[in-house]
Amino acid sequence: MAVYTEVSDEALAAFLAEYDLGAVQSFKGIAEGVENSNFLLVCESGRYILTLYEKRVKKDDLPFFIGLMEHLAQRGVTCPLPVRSRQGEALGRLAERPAAIVTFLDGLWIRRPTARHCAKVGEALAKMHRAGDGFALSRPNALSIGGWPALLAAAEARADEVAPGLAGEAAQALAQLERAWPAGLPEGVIHADLFPDNVFFLGENLSGLIDFYFACNDALVYDLAICLNAWCFEPDASFNITKGRALIGEYERVRRLEPDEVEALPILARGAALRFMLTRLVDWLNVPPGAKVVPKDPLEYLKKMRFHAAIKTARDYGLLR
Amino acid sequence: MAVYTEVSDEALAAFLAEYDLGAVQSFKGIAEGVENSNFLLVCESGRYILTLYEKRVKKDDLPFFIGLMEHLAQRGVTCPLPVRSRQGEALGRLAERPAAIVTFLDGLWIRRPTARHCAKVGEALAKMHRAGDGFALSRPNALSIGGWPALLAAAEARADEVAPGLAGEAAQALAQLERAWPAGLPEGVIHADLFPDNVFFLGENLSGLIDFYFACNDALVYDLAICLNAWCFEPDASFNITKGRALIGEYERVRRLEPDEVEALPILARGAALRFMLTRLVDWLNVPPGAKVVPKDPLEYLKKMRFHAAIKTARDYGLLR
Repeated sequence: MAVYTEVSDEALAAFLAEYDLGAVQSFKGIAEGVENSNFLLVCESGRYILTLYEKRVKKDDLPFFIGLMEHLAQRGVTCPLPVRSRQGEALGRLAERPAAIVTFLDGLWIRRPTARHCAKVGEALAKMHRAGDGFALSRPNALSIGGWPALLAAAEARADEVAPGLAGEAAQALAQLERAWPAGLPEGVIHADLFPDNVFFLGENLSGLIDFYFACNDALVYDLAICLNAWCFEPDASFNITKGRALIGEYERVRRLEPDEVEALPILARGAALRFMLTRLVDWLNVPPGAKVVPKDPLEYLKKMRFHAAIKTARDYGLLR
Repeated sequence: MAVYTEVSDEALAAFLAEYDLGAVQSFKGIAEGVENSNFLLVCESGRYILTLYEKRVKKDDLPFFIGLMEHLAQRGVTCPLPVRSRQGEALGRLAERPAAIVTFLDGLWIRRPTARHCAKVGEALAKMHRAGDGFALSRPNALSIGGWPALLAAAEARADEVAPGLAGEAAQALAQLERAWPAGLPEGVIHADLFPDNVFFLGENLSGLIDFYFACNDALVYDLAICLNAWCFEPDASFNITKGRALIGEYERVRRLEPDEVEALPILARGAALRFMLTRLVDWLNVPPGAKVVPKDPLEYLKKMRFHAAIKTARDYGLLR
């Protein structure tokens, strides 16, 4: 949870003077989101989220993220829609940081997803993949396999403090993945971070996707591999194949996987687990003094890496063919 | 900023089933408030704040706080109104903590108050003092002068780490205050923590008072002394007499101070400064590992203590008689 930056009255008023939102009725910091500072902004015209982009988000990437949300929203994906100023700008500056206003999405994120939630996520992910088609901008995935050696290098000297043998196990997994990593899979815009806290539900219905700040161009099925990791394991790190079947099955009702994608799924799932293990490990070893965010446990993803390493075929995730 | 407790989907649904609020549309942790966990709750029937009372709030005090908000709201004070369940209960239990739902108040808190804001606060404070009349419950002020020796004892061994000589200066001030502390002043329900972040404005108009979790029975003018400290000093710790005049003047338009209250104001203001210096000092020296709240600077209030020690008469705060 996070609000890293205080916004003064005068600065907020000056910023909002550029928009046609009506008078401000409320402005409250939100205790969610790790990378940026987020505020609930209520105006006469409705509810919005105001985001200040903190240092971990590269300024040059912002037009991609903002543009993607506009592109997807216009194509029927329920995601935050950036609000443009009277000058037509979706990106402004507030409290010495890049800042944007987006529409507020109703819904709650699900702390303990069921197979029905997984089914809805699979459907929404595939629809997002289809809707991303034709988006003009592109952004490479800095956290795909090419970025993992640098993460491992940043963490390996102290990795064994977290679990004995962790550095060696990660290095071995990385070497195996580098040898086996597939090329030539169907690519497109992926969300790359579609964890439960980024998916809103109203009752049983999925009401929105948020937080596109890891979105990038990569193999579409890699996004599905990330979701398998994020949605289909139980708290004890066991894999729930009913959830996997729901997630993959509903994904395929919208976008059928090609044979090479099916074949690649186990290796991509293992890679996705390594990616989240490594970023969590780096965060875990580098908690700054006065940190406002409790780091997530890297060992959860070490267990998932091990699970995927033993998988032979996508049928073991619940694929029904 | 703070959300200390996670609320599961099932627990939230079970809790809300006791209320007539309609379907939930949103539920987000709010990065404000130090003592409790606060959530924005949007339902079909409107917007609410759901509060989980964490360990620093004594459970036995909750009926006083909840009852006071109801009493004040019914008498025209714009403050959160507790929402009762279908069973008629304003206090429930969620995530193993006492929990309450109150109405959401529009408004923003003012980061840099002007004299006009101080005037509105003075008026609202006096109206609250009048509206508190007749409230059936009572609660002693645990953080008045009788509680300060214990705070000093908790901090004094390490106080000089924060500023050389601080322990001795605080002990001397406490001894002087104990000799001079007035008795027999008009008493009533006081807010006791009416800092800028607990007062909402919509434009120039005060739209609400929040956070009654330090409210208690004490000398009414002590509340005014707290507000002089909280609202009328500049960031460099200089006293702004224009703000003092506005605060006291508008207070008196609603509730005129009696002669003994006027006489007591300098000593009460010094005592209020010592009280906040001591609680901040204890917090400063006891930041827990993984703390989510940055402690406030006790030295800001040391400077205010020194200012008040040199004050002879309430005219020096801006009283115009």
